[in-house]
Amino acid sequence: MPRPSGRAPDQLRDISIERQFTCHAEGSVLVSFGNTRVICTASVEDSVPRFLRGKNSGWITAEYGMLPRSTGSRMGREAARGKQGGRTQEIQRLIGRSLRAAVDLSKLGEHTITLDCDVIQADGGTRTASITGAFVALVDAINGLQRDKKISTDPLRHFVASVSVGVYQGEAVLDLDYPEDSKADTDLNVVMAEGGEFIEVQGTAEAAPFSRTDLDKMLDLASGGIATLIDCQRAALATG
Amino acid sequence: MPRPSGRAPDQLRDISIERQFTCHAEGSVLVSFGNTRVICTASVEDSVPRFLRGKNSGWITAEYGMLPRSTGSRMGREAARGKQGGRTQEIQRLIGRSLRAAVDLSKLGEHTITLDCDVIQADGGTRTASITGAFVALVDAINGLQRDKKISTDPLRHFVASVSVGVYQGEAVLDLDYPEDSKADTDLNVVMAEGGEFIEVQGTAEAAPFSRTDLDKMLDLASGGIATLIDCQRAALATG
Amino acid sequence: MPRPSGRAPDQLRDISIERQFTCHAEGSVLVSFGNTRVICTASVEDSVPRFLRGKNSGWITAEYGMLPRSTGSRMGREAARGKQGGRTQEIQRLIGRSLRAAVDLSKLGEHTITLDCDVIQADGGTRTASITGAFVALVDAINGLQRDKKISTDPLRHFVASVSVGVYQGEAVLDLDYPEDSKADTDLNVVMAEGGEFIEVQGTAEAAPFSRTDLDKMLDLASGGIATLIDCQRAALATG
Amino acid sequence: MPRPSGRAPDQLRDISIERQFTCHAEGSVLVSFGNTRVICTASVEDSVPRFLRGKNSGWITAEYGMLPRSTGSRMGREAARGKQGGRTQEIQRLIGRSLRAAVDLSKLGEHTITLDCDVIQADGGTRTASITGAFVALVDAINGLQRDKKISTDPLRHFVASVSVGVYQGEAVLDLDYPEDSKADTDLNVVMAEGGEFIEVQGTAEAAPFSRTDLDKMLDLASGGIATLIDCQRAALATG
Amino acid sequence: MPRPSGRAPDQLRDISIERQFTCHAEGSVLVSFGNTRVICTASVEDSVPRFLRGKNSGWITAEYGMLPRSTGSRMGREAARGKQGGRTQEIQRLIGRSLRAAVDLSKLGEHTITLDCDVIQADGGTRTASITGAFVALVDAINGLQRDKKISTDPLRHFVASVSVGVYQGEAVLDLDYPEDSKADTDLNVVMAEGGEFIEVQGTAEAAPFSRTDLDKMLDLASGGIATLIDCQRAALATG
Amino acid sequence: MPRPSGRAPDQLRDISIERQFTCHAEGSVLVSFGNTRVICTASVEDSVPRFLRGKNSGWITAEYGMLPRSTGSRMGREAARGKQGGRTQEIQRLIGRSLRAAVDLSKLGEHTITLDCDVIQADGGTRTASITGAFVALVDAINGLQRDKKISTDPLRHFVASVSVGVYQGEAVLDLDYPEDSKADTDLNVVMAEGGEFIEVQGTAEAAPFSRTDLDKMLDLASGGIATLIDCQRAALATG
Repeated sequence: MPRPSGRAPDQLRDISIERQFTCHAEGSVLVSFGNTRVICTASVEDSVPRFLRGKNSGWITAEYGMLPRSTGSRMGREAARGKQGGRTQEIQRLIGRSLRAAVDLSKLGEHTITLDCDVIQADGGTRTASITGAFVALVDAINGLQRDKKISTDPLRHFVASVSVGVYQGEAVLDLDYPEDSKADTDLNVVMAEGGEFIEVQGTAEAAPFSRTDLDKMLDLASGGIATLIDCQRAALATG
Repeated sequence: MPRPSGRAPDQLRDISIERQFTCHAEGSVLVSFGNTRVICTASVEDSVPRFLRGKNSGWITAEYGMLPRSTGSRMGREAARGKQGGRTQEIQRLIGRSLRAAVDLSKLGEHTITLDCDVIQADGGTRTASITGAFVALVDAINGLQRDKKISTDPLRHFVASVSVGVYQGEAVLDLDYPEDSKADTDLNVVMAEGGEFIEVQGTAEAAPFSRTDLDKMLDLASGGIATLIDCQRAALATG
Repeated sequence: MPRPSGRAPDQLRDISIERQFTCHAEGSVLVSFGNTRVICTASVEDSVPRFLRGKNSGWITAEYGMLPRSTGSRMGREAARGKQGGRTQEIQRLIGRSLRAAVDLSKLGEHTITLDCDVIQADGGTRTASITGAFVALVDAINGLQRDKKISTDPLRHFVASVSVGVYQGEAVLDLDYPEDSKADTDLNVVMAEGGEFIEVQGTAEAAPFSRTDLDKMLDLASGGIATLIDCQRAALATG
Repeated sequence: MPRPSGRAPDQLRDISIERQFTCHAEGSVLVSFGNTRVICTASVEDSVPRFLRGKNSGWITAEYGMLPRSTGSRMGREAARGKQGGRTQEIQRLIGRSLRAAVDLSKLGEHTITLDCDVIQADGGTRTASITGAFVALVDAINGLQRDKKISTDPLRHFVASVSVGVYQGEAVLDLDYPEDSKADTDLNVVMAEGGEFIEVQGTAEAAPFSRTDLDKMLDLASGGIATLIDCQRAALATG
Repeated sequence: MPRPSGRAPDQLRDISIERQFTCHAEGSVLVSFGNTRVICTASVEDSVPRFLRGKNSGWITAEYGMLPRSTGSRMGREAARGKQGGRTQEIQRLIGRSLRAAVDLSKLGEHTITLDCDVIQADGGTRTASITGAFVALVDAINGLQRDKKISTDPLRHFVASVSVGVYQGEAVLDLDYPEDSKADTDLNVVMAEGGEFIEVQGTAEAAPFSRTDLDKMLDLASGGIATLIDCQRAALATG
Repeated sequence: MPRPSGRAPDQLRDISIERQFTCHAEGSVLVSFGNTRVICTASVEDSVPRFLRGKNSGWITAEYGMLPRSTGSRMGREAARGKQGGRTQEIQRLIGRSLRAAVDLSKLGEHTITLDCDVIQADGGTRTASITGAFVALVDAINGLQRDKKISTDPLRHFVASVSVGVYQGEAVLDLDYPEDSKADTDLNVVMAEGGEFIEVQGTAEAAPFSRTDLDKMLDLASGGIATLIDCQRAALATG
């Protein structure tokens, strides 16, 4: 049973990571997982949240948003509705945790790096694309801090990337696009470090509970996909 | 290396499920996982949200809250702050998804069942206790609908329960209390159906990424714990 | 004309005051006026609001909430609606004023004591039960401050308790439950100090204006009821 | 011990009730209790709130506000802060209840009358002046409904007015201005119908609990003051 | 084609500027442009917003509101709706900018002057009446600061007033009232300094785009009208 | 005195209008005025706001936002702060009015077209770029409605574009970038129809009042600039 896109079960969509997409931010990336496109910027501030003051530690946090017409039908603007929805908050908390796991905060100095992930076009997998792209923006921001002598040692622990896997029509598949995602039996978002260990595993049975065997197959696919994504991150960072 | 509570790695806390805890709700449960105590009520309404109207389907949703002094130091009241935080929203979305997975909504008639999970005392694992207790309140509400001839067939698919597992001081342990949870390397919340299949898996590397081996050990512990919790649910429902 | 509950006009409901109901708070009471049950906790903080800083005074404040299904039909959660309603604010202001009247704030040191009154089951008289129960939680918190040598003199001026009275079917009655309250001609909430003097009197003509004679009868009933309630408070505080 | 204003204990401030103060509203009154000045308008709508639809009843409600610089130091604008404070809500609920008591809602047709009370200058007693002035605006609006044949019978039950009383320096006094109000031992707001019966009694011990004797003296003063205020209302309505 | 009011095209409505309208504010003006009546108060605080602290500069800001029944049909109260609408914010930003242009902020000391413009009766041109009246309140407040020796030099640069002009039924007219405003082809609000130069020009094509010739005619009318308004301001300030 | 960019006083920045920038919207444009880049999308809905229902008219509205790091230092996200600021509301009201002026709403059928203007990089003139780009997205959406036979006649009245002009260092200049805008004496935003008539004129004296002569010079520059911008719009629409 073929995937709507014709991809093989273990095949990622076309991945593109474009750095310096906008000019003001300390890191600015346009990441594309197929038709899913997200602007990820990293902004550095010379201060930390109140709970970290004087503790000789930096902080990394994330915010996430979707342009109203990034989707098939227009969504209300969260700023106009006066609050961020539960899904938005859940995703930005996930991005923040995932990227904090990549960095030794005690080596970051009293800086806060905010990753803004703004989806300009959505086709499934916006949170995994956001994490993958924001990591590259984060590295650019960290390199800037080192270049400007604001920090003296490299706080980066390891690369971090993320991909979704799922069970679609009975088969485990990698990097679901929207047509797959909206009909998948199971949806699993995985965040991994470059060594192949897990940072986040978030799986949801959409239609029916899933077995340990399904889980194992999905985790295998995710490992392979994330290794490839980390190669893409390295390639993007090697330029310029 | 012993657990702070002296429990064995695969040992749950004392579990108690008290039905009919309050008098107005269609289902009302006080669930305790050790010192974690949550009031779970099920409220039935004879209508469904707009997006389901006329579709011959019911709906199940959940809300979650903590009394301000359910915790060691007083938290601000969300009603006073004017919004529910990201953690609250994340948890109530999880509870809702987990319980919807237990029920064939097409057999529920045009009813909405709202599960309110209010933590009166917190000691780790409030979301897993909430799911486990709310399931029992949900069953009481569904039984009431059947008794009142409002629905004609049993919409329940299977029991659902939840437990946390984690890696504490290098060892996988079951049902973390707050002293463990606050120091765990990894924290994994698992929701399973009675057949041993997964409904939700949400794992987070708190200190360092975790290996596939750790993940497997934690999932094994969770399976055992949830089987016991479902026995407790059955025992509670067998009375009265 | 008998009361729905069969009580005599001057008869309180069964009163129960259970201390140490939850484990974290400096004072924690489950108070029951018949089927009305409220968790009252007292939380001590080592600071005062901005307007009192440096004035060598403590502060006492209160918050009030109802669990969504404490009532016959489910109420929306105030945290979800994004604000506390007028009734909630009115009640928590009343509780705060009543308890501040019990204490010499200048002897409290720069501490704030917050009384949280959360109704888990409502059957009329939730505000009067809240005041009566919160007073006991407050005493426990104050005793703790003295035991911990954080304050050196006893700031307590006098006991405070509260009860509702009303005119039901033409007759003045004490401690209205919901069936009476919802049909009463007049509803009067009275807060008194142990010496029999008034702290708050809040009377509302629900159906028709009430006469001075009615008012006098209701105040007489309230005096008797509050004397009994203060006995209950003393008895609860005498244990443990 | 003289009052700061030199008034006798049972003496009202200068009372003025100016009708048709603004041109758009169905009733518009500028009421002055001495330096306390409130614009009270009555607005008629040809509909009722959802909970009354189809029940052949009208509705009366009130809103209250203070201009930011109606007071000695500027208060933040509630519209800018994004919510109405507890005091505002308490007062507008009081005004609404008091005026609903004046009218047989079943004779009002399916109309809603909203009384807006906006304080342009505050010197104590803004809520009692609001009730007293809003009653006159309400009568103008009701007379308009009768004149326009929108209702056929007079829904007015009786006049309603309100005054504050208190214990100032040990003596019961009528109609407190701000210098008295801010130092009073006790503050009691009374709303009465023209027959001398009570609609609302709201008393608060500001400094020390008050005795039954004090309460009786204050109620006597209030009765006399309200009789005079109702004379002022009648005089204002007799013109034009 | 005559104007609904019968005024000549270049004729202002009756202008009235009443100082000391309320007693607490440092400046308090009731301004009337015909039936449009606005209370403008100036409040002085001995501090500046955070972004100006330590910069040896004062600040001037404005807030604007309409009483709910200042208009033909009752508008919802912004404080009740929980936010100020876009029109309100636009107007208060305009008033603030216009009055800041009148003053050398570096001579104002570290004071903030807040102009509150509250419309009690609306008949078109509320923003222009607000600016014109608030300027007089501002002068009173500034004079008070000089009288109290809080500032040593006069910070006032020049008088500022404002008027609306428009194209009504093909003809340029001055100071539109509501019947004209609601049917005008073009609506232009102009703020000018006493020397005849522009501070703000805000023109909107309501029905059809307007020509350069129309614009020129409207600007001519505005110049004349504002000169007259400044005469009225001077006359008002010359009294008392 | 040269402009920071070296441009001639009457020289626009490089203008680029890229259609079909994202794939879901009925119109999607990336517009660039030099470094100012805005994504403008047009979304069509088959309904109109309540106030237009049954009136045989369409509606056009706009929303505006800036990505948090579109600017030199990161701005807080309006969705996180829970409301849109005054500037945002002012701009989106301006965009909406300007584009409604371009269309005969009575020929649009009962459709609403929402223009979302999201600034991804800001360098001055974001509102004028938004109007200019959103117009092209609007035309694409209207053309789609005609192609789909949802409307039968062309509702477009005329092209609309916008540019800023100002007085910088004493000289009138066209299309200010941020370095100019932040130091300009005067800032004027002009919206014009293709025939050279005005839709909006919004001028503000930033430093000192401006003369009629300055205003005339700025309006001349704006006319020329807008004619060029309309040529760019036509060229963009002529492709594909």
